[in-house]
Amino acid sequence: MGQRTGDLSAPARPAAPDEGIGADELALATRNHGLPLEALRHDITPPGLHYVFTHYDIPYVPSAGAWRLTVDGRVRAPLDLSLADLLSFPQITTRVTMECAGNGRALLTPRPVGQPWLTEAVGTADWTGVPLGLLLAEAGADPAAVDVVFTGADHGVERGVEQDYQRALPLAVARGDDPRVLVATAMNGAPLPPQHGRPLRLIVPGWYGMAQVKWLRSVTVSDVPFTGFQQSVAYRIRRSADDEGEPVTRIAPRALLVPPGFPDFMSRTRVLRPGPVRLFGRAWSGQAPVSSVAVSTDHGASWAPAVLDPAGGGHRWAWRAWHHDWVASPGTHGVGACATDADGRTQPLDPCWNRSGLGNNAVCWVRVVCGPRASSP
Amino acid sequence: MGQRTGDLSAPARPAAPDEGIGADELALATRNHGLPLEALRHDITPPGLHYVFTHYDIPYVPSAGAWRLTVDGRVRAPLDLSLADLLSFPQITTRVTMECAGNGRALLTPRPVGQPWLTEAVGTADWTGVPLGLLLAEAGADPAAVDVVFTGADHGVERGVEQDYQRALPLAVARGDDPRVLVATAMNGAPLPPQHGRPLRLIVPGWYGMAQVKWLRSVTVSDVPFTGFQQSVAYRIRRSADDEGEPVTRIAPRALLVPPGFPDFMSRTRVLRPGPVRLFGRAWSGQAPVSSVAVSTDHGASWAPAVLDPAGGGHRWAWRAWHHDWVASPGTHGVGACATDADGRTQPLDPCWNRSGLGNNAVCWVRVVCGPRASSP
Repeated sequence: MGQRTGDLSAPARPAAPDEGIGADELALATRNHGLPLEALRHDITPPGLHYVFTHYDIPYVPSAGAWRLTVDGRVRAPLDLSLADLLSFPQITTRVTMECAGNGRALLTPRPVGQPWLTEAVGTADWTGVPLGLLLAEAGADPAAVDVVFTGADHGVERGVEQDYQRALPLAVARGDDPRVLVATAMNGAPLPPQHGRPLRLIVPGWYGMAQVKWLRSVTVSDVPFTGFQQSVAYRIRRSADDEGEPVTRIAPRALLVPPGFPDFMSRTRVLRPGPVRLFGRAWSGQAPVSSVAVSTDHGASWAPAVLDPAGGGHRWAWRAWHHDWVASPGTHGVGACATDADGRTQPLDPCWNRSGLGNNAVCWVRVVCGPRASSP
Repeated sequence: MGQRTGDLSAPARPAAPDEGIGADELALATRNHGLPLEALRHDITPPGLHYVFTHYDIPYVPSAGAWRLTVDGRVRAPLDLSLADLLSFPQITTRVTMECAGNGRALLTPRPVGQPWLTEAVGTADWTGVPLGLLLAEAGADPAAVDVVFTGADHGVERGVEQDYQRALPLAVARGDDPRVLVATAMNGAPLPPQHGRPLRLIVPGWYGMAQVKWLRSVTVSDVPFTGFQQSVAYRIRRSADDEGEPVTRIAPRALLVPPGFPDFMSRTRVLRPGPVRLFGRAWSGQAPVSSVAVSTDHGASWAPAVLDPAGGGHRWAWRAWHHDWVASPGTHGVGACATDADGRTQPLDPCWNRSGLGNNAVCWVRVVCGPRASSP
């Protein structure tokens, strides 16, 4: 690994002014996909509507029974586990709202060239698996170690570096209980689909998607900080090319709404009849529980508090439903929502630009054209 | 319906030279999604990897038990059926390769502005349902009728026309047995996912996706030809704006391959080690069974016959696996495949341009860079 691959793999760059989405970005957009916003209706995102993002190919795993997971490095007793071995450990299920760190990238100016997400890179699922802390205790992880490195079976080249997909967590996070990290073998009560990590993956509730290593093959306890590509080069908030940057970790607050009315096919503008309409959406934060959501129907000129659904069910790591009753009048409206969490973090109105287009949780606006009722057929 | 909606809904148009993918096309690309080509490995496309394309919103159907399907128009005894009623009819299961008629649109020059598919808008599933012919017989459809009109619950505006999604089939096709049209309630043995038509949809094996009406609410037998938007305006092969055009019906032959090696993240160029490699892919045609596949590894300078897997299983409407053994030498290669069907139809090397970007089954090329073996980490 570490091979340099020449001109097939270009450095990261911002798009030129007026540069439309290119063939490379389109190839990513047609493979990966977001959650169509009307699917925010579902508490748990149905399979196939949850966002999916894979850096390289989805590994083909014809037999999950042959899969092995190793736990090694700075441990007393390395583990080499089959899926059946993993299922013999205690299992827990956690409902998690997961979001790609690059959500909102294509809304930035200039646009960082990459997976061109608008706002839809999110989804919520029930994940079932073994708490990672149990596996680290079973292996006898050295408490003086620094990082735990997770390696997936997905393999490719990125910005000139050939690699298996790898990410690390600090040991304290990996074996902590806020959140409790899982080695998950089931999504919504069924075996993991191929694109979500079949047969097993990491789940780090509250963290952006880059931490949720899929097709997990090894867990390595290390006494030095991990400096792999996805940790030290990618997934850092940098203002300039020579900025060392800050790592992306937990999900910033965000609210999204089910676009009201119905769409125009091509412009995706919403058409709505005048009259009462209940705006409905979801809000989440990986940093602290959502404490309030504000709604604007006049593109931010004024805001009203939304009604938050009860936080019931103990689903700390899942999105929370909200609604706001509105009487739509004829005309064009900009409709948006803004979440605030219990630590006082709130969504900005303007994006905070960075070179990789990460963590853009600026308020998004839905254009709604409210016209007279259509005549009968 | 039929309301004109002014400037929110523009006419169809080709992109200008050098015009990148626009915000409207990107919004479609992030909602809809193709089959990542490595998923061609699977005989049956796993849920979430099958292509999805919806013109408008995915309807939210909290209770499938409340759904009704009506069969009316030129019939002796109109039907009003629940899901349970439908399940009391004989059920059959058919394995179907489905492809969007717009697959390949974004590869055309100039690019027709629309859902910007490259090559991935395909998937294969087992669909279970009631043969439509049984329902038409039960209702006593007038044998002198012309068309059968299918109406979905999806509603929107398109090119200025507000509409429910509607398509028609000639009565002879609707009640015929080559293919046997289904009102399907299950996909791969499970209830339909929301994005595939929950709770029921039409399945017309061998036809492009526009015929496969999702969220099916009514079946109307008509003694006049159907002239709705999706029949008379959209989904026609036109060379110019004033050309009446030809309707798109059955799927043209196509072969695609699992891209060999592994990808560069951004360019999607494939990296491959020199040496023997088995190229693997699928081929299909809705017009006649696939009879041969040819493979080129030098961008069409020479072709070799692929080995077709046995056509076993009686899956006339599903894709057929093929493979070709290749010894990759260092350098850059253009790898592609070309299908021919039993009626002698074969894929063109150059696309056949039309204003809506439909039925582009030109051979596609995968760029493969074959380099020396990487050094060890």
